[in-house]
Amino acid sequence: MIVVMKAGTPELEVNRVCDELITWGLSPEKIIGKHKVVIGLVGETAELDPYQIEEVSPWIESVLRVEQPFKRASRAYRHNESSEVVVPTPNGDVYFGEHHPLVITAGPCSVENEEMIIEVAKRVKAAGAKFLRGGAYKPRTSPYAFQGHGESALALLAAAREVTGLGIITEVMDTPDIEKVAEVADVLQIGARNMQNFSLLKQIGKQSKPILLKRGMAATIEDWLMAAEYILAAGNPNVILCERGIRTFDRQYTRNALDLSAIPVLRKLTHLPIMVDPSHGTGWSEYVPSMSLAAIAAGTDSLMIEVHPNPKKAMSDGPQSLTPEQFDQVMKDINVMAKLMNRSAEREPVLA
Amino acid sequence: MIVVMKAGTPELEVNRVCDELITWGLSPEKIIGKHKVVIGLVGETAELDPYQIEEVSPWIESVLRVEQPFKRASRAYRHNESSEVVVPTPNGDVYFGEHHPLVITAGPCSVENEEMIIEVAKRVKAAGAKFLRGGAYKPRTSPYAFQGHGESALALLAAAREVTGLGIITEVMDTPDIEKVAEVADVLQIGARNMQNFSLLKQIGKQSKPILLKRGMAATIEDWLMAAEYILAAGNPNVILCERGIRTFDRQYTRNALDLSAIPVLRKLTHLPIMVDPSHGTGWSEYVPSMSLAAIAAGTDSLMIEVHPNPKKAMSDGPQSLTPEQFDQVMKDINVMAKLMNRSAEREPVLA
Amino acid sequence: MIVVMKAGTPELEVNRVCDELITWGLSPEKIIGKHKVVIGLVGETAELDPYQIEEVSPWIESVLRVEQPFKRASRAYRHNESSEVVVPTPNGDVYFGEHHPLVITAGPCSVENEEMIIEVAKRVKAAGAKFLRGGAYKPRTSPYAFQGHGESALALLAAAREVTGLGIITEVMDTPDIEKVAEVADVLQIGARNMQNFSLLKQIGKQSKPILLKRGMAATIEDWLMAAEYILAAGNPNVILCERGIRTFDRQYTRNALDLSAIPVLRKLTHLPIMVDPSHGTGWSEYVPSMSLAAIAAGTDSLMIEVHPNPKKAMSDGPQSLTPEQFDQVMKDINVMAKLMNRSAEREPVLA
Amino acid sequence: MIVVMKAGTPELEVNRVCDELITWGLSPEKIIGKHKVVIGLVGETAELDPYQIEEVSPWIESVLRVEQPFKRASRAYRHNESSEVVVPTPNGDVYFGEHHPLVITAGPCSVENEEMIIEVAKRVKAAGAKFLRGGAYKPRTSPYAFQGHGESALALLAAAREVTGLGIITEVMDTPDIEKVAEVADVLQIGARNMQNFSLLKQIGKQSKPILLKRGMAATIEDWLMAAEYILAAGNPNVILCERGIRTFDRQYTRNALDLSAIPVLRKLTHLPIMVDPSHGTGWSEYVPSMSLAAIAAGTDSLMIEVHPNPKKAMSDGPQSLTPEQFDQVMKDINVMAKLMNRSAEREPVLA
Repeated sequence: MIVVMKAGTPELEVNRVCDELITWGLSPEKIIGKHKVVIGLVGETAELDPYQIEEVSPWIESVLRVEQPFKRASRAYRHNESSEVVVPTPNGDVYFGEHHPLVITAGPCSVENEEMIIEVAKRVKAAGAKFLRGGAYKPRTSPYAFQGHGESALALLAAAREVTGLGIITEVMDTPDIEKVAEVADVLQIGARNMQNFSLLKQIGKQSKPILLKRGMAATIEDWLMAAEYILAAGNPNVILCERGIRTFDRQYTRNALDLSAIPVLRKLTHLPIMVDPSHGTGWSEYVPSMSLAAIAAGTDSLMIEVHPNPKKAMSDGPQSLTPEQFDQVMKDINVMAKLMNRSAEREPVLA
Repeated sequence: MIVVMKAGTPELEVNRVCDELITWGLSPEKIIGKHKVVIGLVGETAELDPYQIEEVSPWIESVLRVEQPFKRASRAYRHNESSEVVVPTPNGDVYFGEHHPLVITAGPCSVENEEMIIEVAKRVKAAGAKFLRGGAYKPRTSPYAFQGHGESALALLAAAREVTGLGIITEVMDTPDIEKVAEVADVLQIGARNMQNFSLLKQIGKQSKPILLKRGMAATIEDWLMAAEYILAAGNPNVILCERGIRTFDRQYTRNALDLSAIPVLRKLTHLPIMVDPSHGTGWSEYVPSMSLAAIAAGTDSLMIEVHPNPKKAMSDGPQSLTPEQFDQVMKDINVMAKLMNRSAEREPVLA
Repeated sequence: MIVVMKAGTPELEVNRVCDELITWGLSPEKIIGKHKVVIGLVGETAELDPYQIEEVSPWIESVLRVEQPFKRASRAYRHNESSEVVVPTPNGDVYFGEHHPLVITAGPCSVENEEMIIEVAKRVKAAGAKFLRGGAYKPRTSPYAFQGHGESALALLAAAREVTGLGIITEVMDTPDIEKVAEVADVLQIGARNMQNFSLLKQIGKQSKPILLKRGMAATIEDWLMAAEYILAAGNPNVILCERGIRTFDRQYTRNALDLSAIPVLRKLTHLPIMVDPSHGTGWSEYVPSMSLAAIAAGTDSLMIEVHPNPKKAMSDGPQSLTPEQFDQVMKDINVMAKLMNRSAEREPVLA
Repeated sequence: MIVVMKAGTPELEVNRVCDELITWGLSPEKIIGKHKVVIGLVGETAELDPYQIEEVSPWIESVLRVEQPFKRASRAYRHNESSEVVVPTPNGDVYFGEHHPLVITAGPCSVENEEMIIEVAKRVKAAGAKFLRGGAYKPRTSPYAFQGHGESALALLAAAREVTGLGIITEVMDTPDIEKVAEVADVLQIGARNMQNFSLLKQIGKQSKPILLKRGMAATIEDWLMAAEYILAAGNPNVILCERGIRTFDRQYTRNALDLSAIPVLRKLTHLPIMVDPSHGTGWSEYVPSMSLAAIAAGTDSLMIEVHPNPKKAMSDGPQSLTPEQFDQVMKDINVMAKLMNRSAEREPVLA
């Protein structure tokens, strides 16, 4: 349920309404939109009478129910305004969201060694990426496959961050690792296989770094937004949703089926920023350029692209990685497409 | 298997090689590409020795096996050149293919009456469409749902063609109907539910009008190309492949999952032109604009978009139909995107 | 909508009610169940007032709406009684249905030659099968694969029928073939790929031989029952539903996923008899025995099992075919299981 | 790779071979089968020459490669013998495996309060169950849904265990909870959503209680066996695989699609014991009886069935729970079916 305040409501009055609702046993959440202030109410609202709430203040414009099972993640919860996720990085704040320039994240599947991660970081930064991705902890189908270098890889990501000023996005696979990953990462990733690891969602929602939530392989849009709701409900409002391909009956020519219609569907249902990962989404680097452009045309707020200095020798996911040279080329096309869609980085707000 | 002839091979020599191969019990097919002439061989080639064929003529550059199960549909069969489908319409020839401008097909799900089909035809023509789509025979899940007006609807499509000069695309559902549909239609459509109606594929391949082959709901890319192969093998080389969404585990917010990665995958595997139908692909008109742009960005050769003068009162598929006004707006964006992708209609070749 | 008549209603009165309803513009269908007579009404019943109908006769017990989109196929349409399909064969009538013994259909994927089909027919008859299956027209993914011997194979099936007295089940793929297939077959099969070939469903529903309707690879239960509804609505009430595996994300170790829960689901939703095809359902003969037993335990009314004298040399579907010896063995276990489930052939009603 | 020792090889010689292979840098694992002793070798065996190993001892019968990516989980790893999982419970040891009686696990979705869990435990014990299932930690799609009573529920399970002597099966959702769950549970369950929570698999594999590994909703058979391999590779050989339905395109009449063909497929591929959960597999209690019988007929080693004293008031999964009375009835049929399949509890080995 949301309480929409009239334009120009004094802050004191908003706070008074919140305080009053707390005495009713509710947990009001103040959401300051561009145009309006909204007070979100989640919990035992089924019995609440909207008319009774309206009487609390003459500054209340309306009281509306959120019909979807995902409450805080729903666009209705923010009275149809999109939200933004601001990530401080050494190079300045980066904004993810519908009304911000396209953000590019790039890097290798796994952090393999210092030289490679620094090299890739420099290359992707030069090409226009704002974030370096790279796995320290790797979820692998086989226990005998390379599992990531773990903590030592985190140190290498920290080094790459220092050298380039890029923000770092890396995956957390287990609750006991959250703290140490959060020390290095600017954005914590929940991988597709952990999208419904609810213990992890609850714990990660209690810390303050933004979260990149990848869609599970067989997760419906609703499942996914409910997973985001776990994080939001735990107190962390900074969630970015990443489409990375779903599992279908046809896996012969692509590893997954990249669901680009998820972009407009999510835009309608949720206020949260959207990312697309065409590398995992297709599994083959040759399809990454066209799927990157299509994702921008469909309205994505950001892209995650795998780049490796030598894909043929990559310790994981080589076939889906671009070389730095290929990435340079793709970035040129991405910039042209972003400009067409009015998402050019040149419009980027002045950073702190 | 294909026999690649050297550049500049005299036509007489190509014919001689073909004649020679006929004496071997083979059925050579001469394919004249932009750069080279290729002789296609399909059939009992497993036992053939490429070296033996090479000895037939010094003008033979190489003899290559087509590894995929789809032979004539494979890009390799045309030595990696894309093919084009040329459709004569009252307004002139329209070309479908990788190296031609984007072609737009639009119109209602079903032909409901003369007034509506003429109105829609005029509106979509004015907005830039080259073809009018409209169902006379409708495959409906329920026997009690509107099944299309059948033959009388064909007459209305003929009238709309005469008034506007647009080409007509309409579906054939049964072999006995092929002839009468082909009298009116410029392109015959095989619907998703009939993609593996092999009797229909064989029969339709025996007539000369181009075929639009929609992807089955659970058809793999390979199944789909094998269905195209049925038509090609029956003698009709003019097949356009139309992606229209596949069936997945999530049908809550979209009717199907539009598989845009099929575009680059098909481009790699086949020489045939590609169409995308975002109306069926998503099932909701509000997602059609973004998915249309994404399809162009991903490289489609054409789009099929449902337009109805009054979607709320449509006899079928109303929720996925744009109004003519919405279609006008989408076409503006489509033209900008097509220009960016170097697929603008302004580059259109001079028509006969 | 159904009109349930009280027990003991005179036939004259039932007919009078039907006649009365005809004058209302309805098409009443008299259904004589074991316990009650029901009058089915399909069509424009949305506006009908049940109370008004009740006033037509004091012998009317109740007037009930059929809530599902499938009307004639719904169990409610027969007031919760299952129906039976009776097939006259040279060896006598065979009954398919919930309250009849398990019926076994067996034979090769394709009719290859006279010797093999006669041999298989004799062997499967000796083992207890009531029907011989065998494809004359084969739907094959590739146009270059064996397409069945067509009409000549029909003649061989007729010969096998004469020699053994078994009923014949064989597939029709196209409307123009219905008549000639119906001359030989005792049951006409609609294959999975044609389950939504609505033209074929309509035409086949106009002839009187029973129909075996295989489930489409991506057909929901509702899609499937709606396809059956097409046949029922066209006038043929004798439809048997055959589960043969659905397409999922995992095709590595089985060709399809045999959906045995479809059995109790269908039993709840429809009155029509149920068959299971574990050969296509799994794609591997080694899994046929266990899946046959499981299907019986789950309540199937019949089984269709592929048997070939030499599976390794089969012209189609060899890997999923049992040898006659293996079939003998499976039939022993099937008989034991059928007895346990009270579906033993020994209870078979005396045949005409 | 496995080293098969000849029948009758002295234990000292087996140990000597192991010791020798350790000096080669390998980690031999001694597997004592019914007929033979096998030494399993997992790791860098790609370069190993089988002939060289054969020379280590004249008692070596053969050296074979395990072709599948899952090594320790493969049936080949145990030279085609199935393994058994023995679980000590207050009522005695219970054996899971192909050559043991069917084991029944039953109980509510969630532990709701002491009275209900004790009541259910008594009822299911009386009906023949050997294990009580009941969730303390519940993975729920919504953060606002009942999440289980956690630690206090563990205490109630311990009480139910003491009162009835039943073994306890309950889920662990997070690595930090393993120890406290293992204090109460006799078998630790990994839920479908955590099947690829590799951190959890690794940690749980380091403790000694047996593990019930549920199949993920979109996990292929290979994914699932690779998940089991994580546990085996971590040192815990006691893994039971539980099929609980997969996600498909049709979710209208069943919550999931219970994949019973997984039973014979697993039997062929792995030596591990198999369980089937028809309650989650179908989502509706009315389908549980037929699917339980079908699972036994297909060869399952055990069943997990949800039972709740008042399903309509259950805090979770009510629609799929049987009442104790319904469970009594199902158990009668289960016993008859188990007897037919030679899996009757009456053959149960004398317990310690």
